[in-house]
Amino acid sequence: MKKLNFMDTGFLLAESREQPMHVGGVALYTLPEGADAQTFLQDIAGIMRDVDTFQPPFGDRLKTGPLGLLGSVHWESDPAMDIDYHIRHSALPGPGRYRELFNLVSRLHSTLLDRKRPLWEMHLIEGLQDRQFAVYTKTHHAAVDGARSIHMSRSMLSSSADARLQDSPLSAASWERYRATLGERPRGDLTDREIRNIAEVMKARFDSGRNLYSAVKSFANAWMGNDDALALPFLKVPRSSINTSIDGARRFVAQTWPFARIHAVGKAFDGTFNDAVLAMCAGALRTYLQNHTELPDESLKAMVPVSLREEGDIDSSNAVAAISADLATNIEDPARRFAAIRASMRAGKAFYKGMSAAEVQAVSMLMQVPGILLMPLGLASRLPPFNTVISNVPGIRETMYWNGARLDGSYPASIVTEGVALNITLVSYDQNVDFGIMACRRSIPQAQRVIDYMEDALVELEEAAGLVSPTKSAKTGRSVTARPKAKAASKRKAKPKAKPGARVKAKAKAKARPKSAARKKAAASPGRKK
Amino acid sequence: MKKLNFMDTGFLLAESREQPMHVGGVALYTLPEGADAQTFLQDIAGIMRDVDTFQPPFGDRLKTGPLGLLGSVHWESDPAMDIDYHIRHSALPGPGRYRELFNLVSRLHSTLLDRKRPLWEMHLIEGLQDRQFAVYTKTHHAAVDGARSIHMSRSMLSSSADARLQDSPLSAASWERYRATLGERPRGDLTDREIRNIAEVMKARFDSGRNLYSAVKSFANAWMGNDDALALPFLKVPRSSINTSIDGARRFVAQTWPFARIHAVGKAFDGTFNDAVLAMCAGALRTYLQNHTELPDESLKAMVPVSLREEGDIDSSNAVAAISADLATNIEDPARRFAAIRASMRAGKAFYKGMSAAEVQAVSMLMQVPGILLMPLGLASRLPPFNTVISNVPGIRETMYWNGARLDGSYPASIVTEGVALNITLVSYDQNVDFGIMACRRSIPQAQRVIDYMEDALVELEEAAGLVSPTKSAKTGRSVTARPKAKAASKRKAKPKAKPGARVKAKAKAKARPKSAARKKAAASPGRKK
Repeated sequence: MKKLNFMDTGFLLAESREQPMHVGGVALYTLPEGADAQTFLQDIAGIMRDVDTFQPPFGDRLKTGPLGLLGSVHWESDPAMDIDYHIRHSALPGPGRYRELFNLVSRLHSTLLDRKRPLWEMHLIEGLQDRQFAVYTKTHHAAVDGARSIHMSRSMLSSSADARLQDSPLSAASWERYRATLGERPRGDLTDREIRNIAEVMKARFDSGRNLYSAVKSFANAWMGNDDALALPFLKVPRSSINTSIDGARRFVAQTWPFARIHAVGKAFDGTFNDAVLAMCAGALRTYLQNHTELPDESLKAMVPVSLREEGDIDSSNAVAAISADLATNIEDPARRFAAIRASMRAGKAFYKGMSAAEVQAVSMLMQVPGILLMPLGLASRLPPFNTVISNVPGIRETMYWNGARLDGSYPASIVTEGVALNITLVSYDQNVDFGIMACRRSIPQAQRVIDYMEDALVELEEAAGLVSPTKSAKTGRSVTARPKAKAASKRKAKPKAKPGARVKAKAKAKARPKSAARKKAAASPGRKK
Repeated sequence: MKKLNFMDTGFLLAESREQPMHVGGVALYTLPEGADAQTFLQDIAGIMRDVDTFQPPFGDRLKTGPLGLLGSVHWESDPAMDIDYHIRHSALPGPGRYRELFNLVSRLHSTLLDRKRPLWEMHLIEGLQDRQFAVYTKTHHAAVDGARSIHMSRSMLSSSADARLQDSPLSAASWERYRATLGERPRGDLTDREIRNIAEVMKARFDSGRNLYSAVKSFANAWMGNDDALALPFLKVPRSSINTSIDGARRFVAQTWPFARIHAVGKAFDGTFNDAVLAMCAGALRTYLQNHTELPDESLKAMVPVSLREEGDIDSSNAVAAISADLATNIEDPARRFAAIRASMRAGKAFYKGMSAAEVQAVSMLMQVPGILLMPLGLASRLPPFNTVISNVPGIRETMYWNGARLDGSYPASIVTEGVALNITLVSYDQNVDFGIMACRRSIPQAQRVIDYMEDALVELEEAAGLVSPTKSAKTGRSVTARPKAKAASKRKAKPKAKPGARVKAKAKAKARPKSAARKKAAASPGRKK
């Protein structure tokens, strides 16, 4: 029986009806030619379900002692594993658009996993138009972290359309086979004692300090031996409707953009791909808050996990630092906004300079999820540590297939927490970037608008960078928000496959933006997060 | 702001992830001729959603004070009522049989309602075969009791296929109009103080008594002034897989039988329709437990709510008594089993003889839901008070329509509680009786078998009563259980409309039982529960 570590137990303790702690995603597939949806899905469900020995944690349930979650918690093999409970068939009501899909995913993401069973569900969803189907998965954060999820998808998929699953990707055998292809990797995980020590130092500082900011600062100084407090969380985080008490219902929306478009913006402004993503999100959030007449004077801050890996550096591959990025939502000019974001990200990375991978992990963990991790220590988030989370997850940069069905897109469905009612996560896949927005339904009823405004923000950045002629959309800033939705949609770039957003375009005027050779080349280069 | 009474608060306090406290049902409809499913459902959803002022409790959410649910709890109008959250479109995966419907309903019934919103959901479900669609509703037991649910459906439906909804049945106006058609009715509800007094007397007896049985006995004696303790709960309740700890997942199955068949059995054995229902259920449970080699020596006991209304007695219409019925599952012979059940029901009713409606209600309430009601007083169910619940709800005895769509059947979806993992509820509708079984998925994975065995049990009773010739199915008792499913299904009687079970029959051999004139006549008489 494997024992859960301190942080995984934290995810269980922090969970409530209002704050489910599972992560997941929606993958869109196109059926292989000639395949019948129902038969294909029945068959693939059959393969997934046919498992003798599950790989951890898919066959394991929680086992607690007399102290419950406050005592030690283990994984034990579920003696009554009921695979039909976990792998489910669902369908969309007519007309089977992405809108109906997102509605279903919003609902499925709003319900808690059953604590008495292995903490995951997989939903095979039929009823989409154009021979597509979808797979929504949810797994408790205590059972699977982001890295493991990506490995799990990779082990299911193949770059060959002709490859067929040999056995269930949920089986121990499949996982062993996949692991062998990876070779040895440094673990880099902190031990329970290390995490607990760090957390206790943090709590002591908090209790004696004036406020949480000074606690973090004081902790960081103690840890780092320096005084540079730039870009720490809890500092000047404004209030907005994004930072309210949440309830249990969610809104999920998703959209795809070509990698090349976003990458070109980053390059043009001498920043990274990630800087360009933040600038897109910042522009959208600025417009959203402006339209709700609640744009704060202070700019929004986003928690941004960033890989600190240098080119060719393999050992520290686990060093993902949490940076509190200034989104510069108080700056109207898109170029100046980009510059401020870039400066904040550079300062954030500099803060971690010289730390070992384990140090980076410890500091980041504390900054990243204080409301979650510190809850067991009695450190509830008395202040929002940041306004939102914008997380860029590296994905697979080629077309993949699941038992012959082409993967068209893969949209993350993440967690929103008390006080942080919006999460933006994106995954690169093939030539595209797939964004998934998870929001509290009550706090942010118009989550679709946020993602619509992201296209407006990207166009604004492209125009400011001189990548496209501004004549096409004339105005920037406030005027963008007044543009009717249909027109805004018409500007979206044509994409090679049918994906969220693509359908809107098909109906709109053929004002597709030019596919320049430069943009196409950029798409081929994996130069992200440098 | 209306205050919740002691019992309604009890339903909230007793609720957990493992024990959701909502009730509901599935209604099956056939689309009006020429109507398109998607358009019809969009239209009807539009009518349902179009509400200015909701009737209580559909627009109300819970409001608690600093003591939470332990203090006083009120209903308050939800200022951010989000009707799209409550009325939802869903669809079934292929092939869209009742099996897929019951799977979906099982899942929907397993999730908790959001406590921060009005405590109900309505799901319009498309994707059924044969131009049918389904509506699954769930409402918290703290918000709506069984009687109110029936009124709610009645106010939505019409006996005319041409009638169209004037406004949303959720509106205050619609409810006022419906109420006016009912005339004045005695309330009969106990006050909070009365319930609390009864419960506290009960608790005092329990604390000083030897066990819960003697507490109930002692309480009943105190209340009644006599010594007859026959048929009280907690007495000789055997253990079985039905009486285990439950988890949060459910299995829902449903089936329809002609009212006339069951009624004829009751009549033939000089019992009531309800006695015949109990005998059907008893036979099925006996077979189920036998096949799992765990039939207890002691017979199972069922909590059976029974109306004590005499013919022509209108005032005491609320007097529903909870009887602990002996299901005589330890008796092999079906005729002798029926006799034992009948005797137990008669003794149970005699126990209540001479009580006022309020007294009946008070005693029944305590017997009926001890685990729920007594929980706030610290009286957890240390013994299962009964093995299962079998509840017969009077429904509408003519064909009804919802905005032109014919109601084909209406299947209750009830609550299972810790220690009582099976609930059988049935509603009479038109010429039929619609059974809904709700089970804990882990405790009773083969809930479908229970309902299949009910047909076997009914045939066995019909044969024992000489209503059908035993040559058709040759053997009784144990041998019934060995009969393959397809053959058992072939015996089901042809019914006038496509309903659960009907499809199975269509495929099976045309061994339909004869529709005797006597049986047809019996169906027309509403002689139930006499």
